[in-house]
Amino acid sequence: SRSLNLAVIPGDGIGQEVVAQGLKVLSAVLPQDVKLETKEYDFGAKRYHATGETLTDADLDALKRHDAILLGAIGDPSVPSGVLERGFLLKLRFAFDHHVNLRPSKLLPGVATPLAGQPEIDFVVVREGTEGPYTGNGGTIRKGTEHEVATEVSVNTAFGVERVVRDAFARAQARPRKKLTLVHKNNVLAFAGHLWTNIFNKVAEEFPEVTTDYIHVDAATIYLVTDPARFDVIVTDNLFGDIITDLAAAVSGGIGVAASGNINPSGEFPSMFEPVHGSAPDIAGQAKADPSATVLSVALLLRHLGYEAEAVRIEEAVSADLAERVGKPARSTDEIGDALAVRVAG
Amino acid sequence: SRSLNLAVIPGDGIGQEVVAQGLKVLSAVLPQDVKLETKEYDFGAKRYHATGETLTDADLDALKRHDAILLGAIGDPSVPSGVLERGFLLKLRFAFDHHVNLRPSKLLPGVATPLAGQPEIDFVVVREGTEGPYTGNGGTIRKGTEHEVATEVSVNTAFGVERVVRDAFARAQARPRKKLTLVHKNNVLAFAGHLWTNIFNKVAEEFPEVTTDYIHVDAATIYLVTDPARFDVIVTDNLFGDIITDLAAAVSGGIGVAASGNINPSGEFPSMFEPVHGSAPDIAGQAKADPSATVLSVALLLRHLGYEAEAVRIEEAVSADLAERVGKPARSTDEIGDALAVRVAG
Ligand SMILES: CC(C)[C@H](C(=O)O)[C@@H](O)C(=O)O
Ligand SMILES: CC(C)[C@H](C(=O)O)[C@@H](O)C(=O)O
Repeated sequence: SRSLNLAVIPGDGIGQEVVAQGLKVLSAVLPQDVKLETKEYDFGAKRYHATGETLTDADLDALKRHDAILLGAIGDPSVPSGVLERGFLLKLRFAFDHHVNLRPSKLLPGVATPLAGQPEIDFVVVREGTEGPYTGNGGTIRKGTEHEVATEVSVNTAFGVERVVRDAFARAQARPRKKLTLVHKNNVLAFAGHLWTNIFNKVAEEFPEVTTDYIHVDAATIYLVTDPARFDVIVTDNLFGDIITDLAAAVSGGIGVAASGNINPSGEFPSMFEPVHGSAPDIAGQAKADPSATVLSVALLLRHLGYEAEAVRIEEAVSADLAERVGKPARSTDEIGDALAVRVAG
Repeated sequence: SRSLNLAVIPGDGIGQEVVAQGLKVLSAVLPQDVKLETKEYDFGAKRYHATGETLTDADLDALKRHDAILLGAIGDPSVPSGVLERGFLLKLRFAFDHHVNLRPSKLLPGVATPLAGQPEIDFVVVREGTEGPYTGNGGTIRKGTEHEVATEVSVNTAFGVERVVRDAFARAQARPRKKLTLVHKNNVLAFAGHLWTNIFNKVAEEFPEVTTDYIHVDAATIYLVTDPARFDVIVTDNLFGDIITDLAAAVSGGIGVAASGNINPSGEFPSMFEPVHGSAPDIAGQAKADPSATVLSVALLLRHLGYEAEAVRIEEAVSADLAERVGKPARSTDEIGDALAVRVAG
C-alpha cells in the first residue's frame, strides 16, 4: 500500500483556516489505499515570539523526512518586515533547493477579473527560486550616514539558469500550445541577460517543437493586461517572477485562487506547496478567507507526487465551485472546503 | 525677450513622425515673445550604422548647451539589443544626471483602458534614474562555459536616494491629495530596502502634511490593476520604476499617451523629455503613430522650464482631442498634430 507523509505548516493569520480546508480536500480525494500521514509544524510569528527561532537546522532535518510540505501563510505585523520572509520562507527555498517556483494562472469561468472583456488566460510561470537578487548577496557601508552605500547583488549561474530553463521547456513541450517566453531585461542587465538569453537559445535547440519568444519584463506587464493570451509558459528570474506572478494572479481571478509550488524536481528534498496570498491578518479568524488557492496548491502537490487524476479532480472541483458562486451569498472558509471535499469525493 | 533653445532628437522609427507634431504644437503654444531655436541631432540606428557611434563626448558637449532636449524614440531591430539602450539612452541619463525620471499616469475621459469599470487613475511615478540595477556594475566569469557566473549589482547611495525621495515629497506636497507611496521590496532586498525605507521615513518628517505609504513592488502591480486610485505620487528605484510605469501606462490609456521627463532638477544639465513608447518599427512611416505621448512630453518640458500655463493648455488640448475621438475614424499622425496645434493656439 502507498503512503503520503506530509509536513503541514499552517503558519499565521488565515494560514490556519485555509490549510484545514486543503487537508480536508486532500483526504477526500486520495485513493483508499494511500495512507495519509500528516505532521503539523508551528513555524511563524508565534514560534518566533516564543523562541526567537524561525527555522533551525533541526527543523530542516525533520522537514526533510516528508514527501512534501503544505504551507498556509507566514507573516504577521508583530514581526519586523523581512524576518520571517528571509528567516523562514527564503531560507526553506534555498535549503531545499526549490529552484522551480511554479505559478499557474488560469482565468476560470465565472471568476471576476479586473480586466475588461473576460480575456482568455491560461499560462504557467516558471520562476527561478534559488538565485538572482534573492541570494542576500550585497551589503552596506557607512550605514545611517549621508554617505551610506547599499548594494544588492543578483547572482546568476549557468548551472542554475540552465536547469530551470530546461524544466520550463519540458513543461512547454507537454502543453498543447508548446510556447515558451523568456522574460528578462537583457538590454539593461546585460551580464545576467546575456547568460539567460544564451542558455535559453541553447536549450531551445533541444526542443524544436517549442515556439520561443523573448519579452522585456516591463513590456511583459503590459501584455499581461492587454493580451494575456499571448503567454503559454513563461520562464524568468527570481525577482521578475515575483513581480509578474502577483500581477498574473491579479488578472486571473486574484490571489484568492492563485496556487504555487516550490519544487525540487530531483526529489532530493521535499517540495513545498502554498497559496500565493499572505497571512491576511485583517481577515484572520473570521472564516472569510477563500481556501481555493490552498486547495489548488494541494492539486499541484498531488501532481508533483504522481497523483495526476486526483490533481485534475481537485482542479475541476474548484472550477465548478467558482462557476456556481456567481450571484450567490458568500460562504465561509469551512463551507467552501466542505463543498470542495464533497465534489472531489463524488 | 525670452528664448527657448531646444535640442531635438527624432531618433528611429516613429520618432521622426511624432517629434514633428511635438514641435508643431510647441510653436503654436509658445508666447509670441519667446524665441524658439531648435537644433536637430541624428542619434540612433542610422548614425550608429554609419559611424559606429552612439553618443560621443563632443555630442554631450553640444547637447549641454541647450535648455532642454526633446526625444522621439531610439531603437531599431537592425542594431543588437542593448547597444543603443546603454550606448545612448542610459548614457545620456547618467551623463546629465537625470535622477528624477517623471512619469505621470492619468486616465483621461474617453480613453480606452484594459481595466473594467473605467477606474479613476491620476498619479505620478518618480523613478530614480541614475542608480539601482541600472549602473552597469557587475560582470561575468567563465563566460560561455557551464561554470559561467554573471552578476548585476544594484548600487544605492544615501545621496542618490535622498534627493529623489525629497523631490517626490515636494511633488506630493504640491498635489491636492498629498500622498506619497514608496514602492520597493525591502523584505527581501534588505540592504537597499533599509536605505530606501530609512531615508523615506526621515524625509517624511519634513513633510508632515504628506500622507505616506509603503508597498512591495509585487503587491504594487496588483493595486495598479485592482485599485489604481490608491496612488497619488509613487517614488521607487530605477528598475521597479521601469516595470511599474509600463504597467501604469498600459492601464491608463496605453503607451500612445504616456509621457515622461528625465529631469535634472538643479538645472546643471538640460533635462530630456520623451514619450514612454519605443520606435515601433512595425508602424513607422505609415502616419499611424499617435503623437499624443510626445505632445504631452512637450507639456512636461514646458512645465519644467516654467511655462506652466502653456503646459496646462497642451494637456487640456490633448484631453479634449482624446475625448472627441470616440467613434470617429482614425486620423493620421499629422492630422492629430494639426488638431492639437489649432486647439492650443485657440
Ligand atoms: C514573502 C516574499 C519573500 C515572497 C517572495 O518575494 O518570493 C512572496 O512575495 C512570494 O512571491 O512568494
Ligand atoms: C529602453 C530602456 C533602456 C528603458 C529603460 O529600461 O529605462 C525603457 O524601458 C524606459 O523605461 O525608458
